[in-house]
Amino acid sequence: MRIGGCDAIDMARQYGTPLYAYDEAGLRRTCREYLTAFRAAWPRAHVAYACKAFATTAMLRLASEEGLGIDAMSAGELALARRAGVPAADLTFHGVVKTGEELEQAVAGGVGYVVIDSAEEVADLIRVAARLGRRQPVLLRVNPAVAVTTDPRYRTGDRDSKFGLCIADGSARRAAAQALAAEQLRLDGVHFHLGSQLTSAQPYAEAMTAVARLLAEIPGWRPSRVVVGGGMGVRYGDNGPAVPTPQRWATSIAGAFRQRLASHCADDVILGIEPGRSVVAEHGSTLYTVGTVKPSQERPGVIILVTDGGLSDNPRPLMYSAVHDVVAAADPLEAGGYVADIYGRHCETDLLFAGVRLPRIGRGDILVVRTTGAYTYCMASNYNRFPRAAVVFARDGMSRLVVRRETTADLLATELE
Amino acid sequence: MRIGGCDAIDMARQYGTPLYAYDEAGLRRTCREYLTAFRAAWPRAHVAYACKAFATTAMLRLASEEGLGIDAMSAGELALARRAGVPAADLTFHGVVKTGEELEQAVAGGVGYVVIDSAEEVADLIRVAARLGRRQPVLLRVNPAVAVTTDPRYRTGDRDSKFGLCIADGSARRAAAQALAAEQLRLDGVHFHLGSQLTSAQPYAEAMTAVARLLAEIPGWRPSRVVVGGGMGVRYGDNGPAVPTPQRWATSIAGAFRQRLASHCADDVILGIEPGRSVVAEHGSTLYTVGTVKPSQERPGVIILVTDGGLSDNPRPLMYSAVHDVVAAADPLEAGGYVADIYGRHCETDLLFAGVRLPRIGRGDILVVRTTGAYTYCMASNYNRFPRAAVVFARDGMSRLVVRRETTADLLATELE
Repeated sequence: MRIGGCDAIDMARQYGTPLYAYDEAGLRRTCREYLTAFRAAWPRAHVAYACKAFATTAMLRLASEEGLGIDAMSAGELALARRAGVPAADLTFHGVVKTGEELEQAVAGGVGYVVIDSAEEVADLIRVAARLGRRQPVLLRVNPAVAVTTDPRYRTGDRDSKFGLCIADGSARRAAAQALAAEQLRLDGVHFHLGSQLTSAQPYAEAMTAVARLLAEIPGWRPSRVVVGGGMGVRYGDNGPAVPTPQRWATSIAGAFRQRLASHCADDVILGIEPGRSVVAEHGSTLYTVGTVKPSQERPGVIILVTDGGLSDNPRPLMYSAVHDVVAAADPLEAGGYVADIYGRHCETDLLFAGVRLPRIGRGDILVVRTTGAYTYCMASNYNRFPRAAVVFARDGMSRLVVRRETTADLLATELE
Repeated sequence: MRIGGCDAIDMARQYGTPLYAYDEAGLRRTCREYLTAFRAAWPRAHVAYACKAFATTAMLRLASEEGLGIDAMSAGELALARRAGVPAADLTFHGVVKTGEELEQAVAGGVGYVVIDSAEEVADLIRVAARLGRRQPVLLRVNPAVAVTTDPRYRTGDRDSKFGLCIADGSARRAAAQALAAEQLRLDGVHFHLGSQLTSAQPYAEAMTAVARLLAEIPGWRPSRVVVGGGMGVRYGDNGPAVPTPQRWATSIAGAFRQRLASHCADDVILGIEPGRSVVAEHGSTLYTVGTVKPSQERPGVIILVTDGGLSDNPRPLMYSAVHDVVAAADPLEAGGYVADIYGRHCETDLLFAGVRLPRIGRGDILVVRTTGAYTYCMASNYNRFPRAAVVFARDGMSRLVVRRETTADLLATELE
């Protein structure tokens, strides 16, 4: 099997396993597809990569080179963006609870926007901007009370969400008035984000209607920027639900915007979107080496297969019941006659993938888990004190290490005794 | 509220939040209780702390000082044990898939026991020991096919477990014969581990019967060591199910051993146990600062409370639906008239604890989440690139930092671009 033109087995040998391997050309193509599609549908469109899905210097630089802005949500992500050479003006700083230190860094660093998430934060930000002698451009994250039909853990815009300023109870209106009155802030617009793994533009359209109602309550203010968040769904596995293309998202989201909200905004209003997961998920895979193979005692013909990784490098199967396609690197197109329950090597059961059809497979063979490009590396832990895996970018048959594997010294770096 | 005689609010101020705070005297007391109780019940008892539950130099040193051996299951945990000054002979090395490098380190480092988990590993270990010119003491981890009534993710000894050598199909018997015949190995005994959060000795007794059957099939071999694993349950929260004391575990486990298995073993057989979670869980707490408070729109009287931590410092609520008691540090005995849904500050919903009764609480106040001493710090991630929190040991009113908070430099340490 090839990833970015490189043989997966060769990369496993060269860099070791577990290994996160990305198809760099694929990443670039999807960035461009989003940008092209949204600019075609709304000429003043802005696309930011929500880097929480996969934040590493190489990826932030890539997204920035392809013309995307970057959404960051911590001092750590801001530091990565600086390291990647992302212009500060291209950064948007998010977070439901931002620490004082984070707000200082964001404002002092000149980020393009701080997205205000709560009433308390308006006052915080006025104080920080005043102390630093800055006028900080801001957006208000509003809660449009749209409950999307996705996993409850993925909903971020329903009525009782922790996120954003509630439109219904007047919190959003009051915060907007306060921000508009503050000379330390420049309130340019409104932001919402509804959740993850969405497959239709309908919730975006409903949220736009809620925002239009809010704007009707704030006479004289016509926002120059409306950001409708991310959440564009990803297809996990060949049997997963189909998802819209960037082109389809662009047409339907821009169409709803034109119909429901644009007339309440400034004439040159910018429509922003923030894809994260859908930019990176399908272009990343995880490579494992098979460690142990045992026959199942209870189900003849089923094999129990233990890899050299597990929940520390991919907590998603255990945490979200996530499903991924798994193939043998040597024979990726062969479904094969073996049915395997694939486990990680942690101290607990650590079942990663049940009932996977594989060709004949043995100890030392390489498995490829597909569509692990999002929320996998970034959620990795050192559980059982395993070192975190390396990240490789592959393109045109050449691969390079962009994040090195952790060493024992890394694992001990914060130990004081 | 006091932890190890130190005021929790003072520690939050001194070290920052989120913060893992341990009561050192409590940790030492539980270590001693296990040792005293098991030695009273079976004079040749061996207690090892399964450090996967909470592995840091300070804790390994503490357990070793209190007379416990240490169970390690990775090169990283071995390195911590070395750093803590744990004598190599007191170490037992575990793991369902051990890498070649890990086996080398374990054997070269002179660990007391390597616990063999699969047929392949017998051959691996013979090779490694031969190359290093060592004779390695080993135990065989067997699968006794005992399905315990705990969360399936916590079961590690049922018939189709990934762990251990199956007794039923002859794998264990064959591996024992192979190990007994190998001059590079010294097979001293048998090991099993049934799962976590057990509350009765009955499964241990059943597993002992299975081991007795295995020993009956291996004429002439009388093991000098039988290790029955850990899994001793912890009470999470005042409303959680009650669990046996170390004394109770000792009486019932040693009783079953005497009745079912000891007669098949050497006269001076050592009975080993490996508690992890139950040594540390109740002595650790997590301190958070309240970041944002919002009223619920849907449930009058309920508040939505967002802390400055979340699933990166404690993935257990999301991963295992774990329940913890939460109290206000300023007023820990007051249940109070507020009902709070407590969230973390991550980019997703990140609900930590629902429907918690608290006294009047506001932004900046300190919350204490109890019984987070096990499988919390060790499972922490850098999700959203938040730094991992510091660990403090408190005793007799004095506190000291044993693991420092990560810095931005730590977060970038493995970035190559």
